[in-house]
Amino acid sequence: MRTIDWIDGGIELIDQTLLPHRLEQRRVTELTDLISDIQRLAVRGAPALGVAGAMGVALIAANVAAADTSGDAAAARAEVVRQSLLLREARPTAVNLSWGVDRALTRLDEGAAAILDEALAIRDEDIAACISMGLRGADLTRELTGKDPVRVMTICNTGGLATVERGTALGVIQTLLEQGSLAEAFPLETRPLLQGVRLTAWELQRMGAPFRLLIDSAGPFLLSRGIADAVFIGADRIAANGDSANKIGSFSLALAAKHAGVPFIVVAPESTVDMATASGSDIEIEDRGVAEVAGFGGVRTAPEGIEAVNPAFDVTPYELITAIVTERRVIRPGTGETLATVPLEPLRS
Amino acid sequence: MRTIDWIDGGIELIDQTLLPHRLEQRRVTELTDLISDIQRLAVRGAPALGVAGAMGVALIAANVAAADTSGDAAAARAEVVRQSLLLREARPTAVNLSWGVDRALTRLDEGAAAILDEALAIRDEDIAACISMGLRGADLTRELTGKDPVRVMTICNTGGLATVERGTALGVIQTLLEQGSLAEAFPLETRPLLQGVRLTAWELQRMGAPFRLLIDSAGPFLLSRGIADAVFIGADRIAANGDSANKIGSFSLALAAKHAGVPFIVVAPESTVDMATASGSDIEIEDRGVAEVAGFGGVRTAPEGIEAVNPAFDVTPYELITAIVTERRVIRPGTGETLATVPLEPLRS
Repeated sequence: MRTIDWIDGGIELIDQTLLPHRLEQRRVTELTDLISDIQRLAVRGAPALGVAGAMGVALIAANVAAADTSGDAAAARAEVVRQSLLLREARPTAVNLSWGVDRALTRLDEGAAAILDEALAIRDEDIAACISMGLRGADLTRELTGKDPVRVMTICNTGGLATVERGTALGVIQTLLEQGSLAEAFPLETRPLLQGVRLTAWELQRMGAPFRLLIDSAGPFLLSRGIADAVFIGADRIAANGDSANKIGSFSLALAAKHAGVPFIVVAPESTVDMATASGSDIEIEDRGVAEVAGFGGVRTAPEGIEAVNPAFDVTPYELITAIVTERRVIRPGTGETLATVPLEPLRS
Repeated sequence: MRTIDWIDGGIELIDQTLLPHRLEQRRVTELTDLISDIQRLAVRGAPALGVAGAMGVALIAANVAAADTSGDAAAARAEVVRQSLLLREARPTAVNLSWGVDRALTRLDEGAAAILDEALAIRDEDIAACISMGLRGADLTRELTGKDPVRVMTICNTGGLATVERGTALGVIQTLLEQGSLAEAFPLETRPLLQGVRLTAWELQRMGAPFRLLIDSAGPFLLSRGIADAVFIGADRIAANGDSANKIGSFSLALAAKHAGVPFIVVAPESTVDMATASGSDIEIEDRGVAEVAGFGGVRTAPEGIEAVNPAFDVTPYELITAIVTERRVIRPGTGETLATVPLEPLRS
């Protein structure tokens, strides 16, 4: 089952807010529903958001074409662009959403069918990219740790549910499992929205991986006590200097990995690299407000009337990153390698 | 209102599992209830556990004396000791619980009334110690940061609810507030049991302090972005070399404080210092099992059938601690000062 796909003229996606208790697919045929699904995190994960952005433009183009009775092609194109900009801004931090929207819009002049072709190409490239990242990441992990099998820690959900079919950081863990190289995984629960316990634990269980769950703040300490050989995270945006925005809690793991002498590896597709953003200090961080912090799964835990600071993401400086793995290359910031200088290689499969 | 007190021949304590929604006092007259209350964290916080331990021995002695019809004083004393050992082991990490039990037992030969006197003395000393810690800590904070007012971060609950009447680390924050020196406090929610959001936010609100709540993993990142001038934590046990056991998440804050160049200050009474424990690696860390991690407040977040690693505490190595503040002195491990060499000073009041 794919996390997001285009079926019979509409988008179908797994409603991730219902996991791990119910596995349900939603059909989306209106832009307002798609924006709402993105904002309430029914669909989430940077690569999946790229596909959602592109398929969203395909949906807009189809709906505008169906509603257009004037035959004014220029006005129709302007309307597709206008609605696409609304979609593009549904969430600010993930570069993939705007990347997916923009790439689909490059086919605007060719019409709705061409835009859909572009969206389906992005979907297929995501599937191939995750296979390639998994293979590169698994090899790199054995090389960096000198161990086989390995024990790995991760945060948030970077699995099939964050992509189309197979994950980024969790895709590496899945590849390690398939290759007989996974001793144990330690997913962090990932407050405030608990993607780790709701989604990653569910995926690990389905793939038959040995794992034990941790609360977020136990990760750094247990790294200092040698519980894991490597840390893998995904990324929502990678700046030109290698600074990486990812789920809040990633920075803390990176500091602890450095302190423990454990490799800290960012796994994300090339579409996550944003060479137009010079460094992490230029990345806008979404504050998701007090409600998520004041409660837990519908249970109010905080007194009434409090305020919170609730950054959805943090930024890990490149100095704390051992390696960035994409589908096309491995960059090791500590050795002086940069995103600007390491050449792209063919996909692995 | 005191967190724990001795009233009319029994222990009365605030049931902290009901906060912040209900403020209720429980009356405890049986050892089994007290042990259960300690284990389910109705009463918690290292200093309050010391008082609970001592008052528990007073309760045991009174109950044994009331039930004793044989007149065999030696047998009665042996029974008090036997039951006291059960109480002593109700929770393993906090040294204060066993310290309170042991100190009350020093009066065993003088009878139940003398044991109660000792327990009441511990209660009164706790109140005075917290006042002294608050004053020392507030002065130290202004000195170390060079700022007034200051912005401070803290984890777990180290307030009046962790002691008898006034807190340790949160007591310093309260003193800063009373002295006009508190710009803002940033309490961490403190998974898995959420003492920060349930108890510390409630206390900060009651004292009228400006504050914003954070999820645990946001603390380290926001320190790196300069949100706070100092971090205060309590301690459950301080080893002879200064390594400090405290709520899980403390280690992660200490690493981040060091990285950000922000003072990291441990505030705890002298009774928390355990010179018989050489270093942090000798401190037993309680694992509280999977249930706390798999959900909260009756809401299951995890898939069924998972496992977890759930250390209730972590250990911050002394190298990451800027200062240890007790009621009697300030120790700065970074300057070569040690618990063995810094002399005790008079209480401040």
